[in-house]
Amino acid sequence: MTLIKLDHRLENDCIKLGYLFDSLVLLMDNALFPWLILVPAPVGSPAIDEFDLLPRDKQIALLDQSNQLAAFLRKYYPFDKLNIATIGNIVRQIHIHIVARSEDDTCWPAVVWGQAKNTPWQAADVDNLIDSLAAYLPKDFQKTSV
Amino acid sequence: MTLIKLDHRLENDCIKLGYLFDSLVLLMDNALFPWLILVPAPVGSPAIDEFDLLPRDKQIALLDQSNQLAAFLRKYYPFDKLNIATIGNIVRQIHIHIVARSEDDTCWPAVVWGQAKNTPWQAADVDNLIDSLAAYLPKDFQKTSV
Repeated sequence: MTLIKLDHRLENDCIKLGYLFDSLVLLMDNALFPWLILVPAPVGSPAIDEFDLLPRDKQIALLDQSNQLAAFLRKYYPFDKLNIATIGNIVRQIHIHIVARSEDDTCWPAVVWGQAKNTPWQAADVDNLIDSLAAYLPKDFQKTSV
Repeated sequence: MTLIKLDHRLENDCIKLGYLFDSLVLLMDNALFPWLILVPAPVGSPAIDEFDLLPRDKQIALLDQSNQLAAFLRKYYPFDKLNIATIGNIVRQIHIHIVARSEDDTCWPAVVWGQAKNTPWQAADVDNLIDSLAAYLPKDFQKTSV
């Protein structure tokens, strides 16, 4: 599997969880919300940076991967509303946000993008999340460290 | 075609453009950004309110419709970055935002959700947009008023 080179802001702000098929799964390092980010392997050279310009089969693969991560959150991190978005105004590398929102979270009902509030994840909680993800998607998810 | 009953906040904040297949296409009444909203015909009773819980064929249909609207914006309202999102923290009826962002728009690079800035569309500009959409997608898009 080709390793995905991350934009430095994603590299700084997120924790690498592993690969789901050929996409990298990140955790935004903000424990206020379970906030996953799916980063596809680049397509084209220079890499396509708009979701709607990706080939349809790649879009559908990402849709399926997004559904897998949503189902994982639904089981392990129950939420009130799921927010799914591809924005990219600052980081152009295509990435899909999958954010589990609760009506009692610190930003509700505002969106999480642009909010300054931040609480880093505890290492043990990240390990638990990775183990849960590996257990939930044993065939398709591979831990980064493996 | 079954008419889609809109949540009252979408009804108040948006202009109905027409139907793309069985989905309603709205224009957020804020001319600061070309901001389309795709509202699918409801699925299930009570209606499913999370995108990831929709049947996969419905998701793919919405993906294709979203691509059509993105391509339309790309041709008629050139932009620097497209923002695509399903959020729904306030309005639970499933709706997909497709927002054409420019590096010189009033909110750049922040997201548009939760921003107070607003400039209503001029009626003539809306008519032009609808005519352009009908010309671009002659087989699939039907004006609301027809």
